[in-house]
Amino acid sequence: MSSETSDHDAVLAANRDFYQAFARRDHEAMAALWSEDEPVTCIHPGWQGLFGRDAVMSSWRAIMNGDSPAIECSEPRVTVLGDVAIVVCIESAAGSPAQLAATNVFQRDDVGWKLVHHHAGLIARATSPEPPVKRTLN
Amino acid sequence: MSSETSDHDAVLAANRDFYQAFARRDHEAMAALWSEDEPVTCIHPGWQGLFGRDAVMSSWRAIMNGDSPAIECSEPRVTVLGDVAIVVCIESAAGSPAQLAATNVFQRDDVGWKLVHHHAGLIARATSPEPPVKRTLN
Repeated sequence: MSSETSDHDAVLAANRDFYQAFARRDHEAMAALWSEDEPVTCIHPGWQGLFGRDAVMSSWRAIMNGDSPAIECSEPRVTVLGDVAIVVCIESAAGSPAQLAATNVFQRDDVGWKLVHHHAGLIARATSPEPPVKRTLN
Repeated sequence: MSSETSDHDAVLAANRDFYQAFARRDHEAMAALWSEDEPVTCIHPGWQGLFGRDAVMSSWRAIMNGDSPAIECSEPRVTVLGDVAIVVCIESAAGSPAQLAATNVFQRDDVGWKLVHHHAGLIARATSPEPPVKRTLN
């Protein structure tokens, strides 16, 4: 297996672990997935940006302790840029037709790939064959 | 000036160039800002992910030729991770109270910092002191 394939698969596995931790509301696994070395950032759907590990982990605790639906990830696409990787994927909420588009950014550390940034936002009119051309939802 | 400060400032400048190209509807500048070396990706507000330079540049041509409002960037926060940098910022549309949260990912090449990924999504209830705890907008 080439190093490129190996990196790609390792990032996919880290991305899968992230959605599994979320679905299982596993706070310990979620905390372990996020980098402790870098200033992590996170943009939840509809939220402003959160900066730093304390704010980001606190948001995940609130979300996983709340009544948020289980989220499934599909169609992950990985771009490896050296020691950083970007995953773009679809998030689907159980029992809802709503879908979100997500960006997950990972950084390689000594152990594996750790999340440094997450951004998710609702996809409008997911059934439409053409995306809206206007830049804002209004 | 330390190399860290220099990287931080160079990324901020590239991020500023991106919003200037957008505001001026400068297609040539926009095309030059995006990496030609890596498979770029883009998630416009409400859209699904776009993959590859052709799809991404075509979307910007459509947006900049359309009636999208001018966008201003504020509160950019930069995280430099070696040769990749993440900018999280606020986008405001002229003449609208709507604000978007944006992620811009840049990669360093021989010349400077090039965009490899952009993701923007509407901020809900921007005037509320507390963000929504639920993970989806519904």
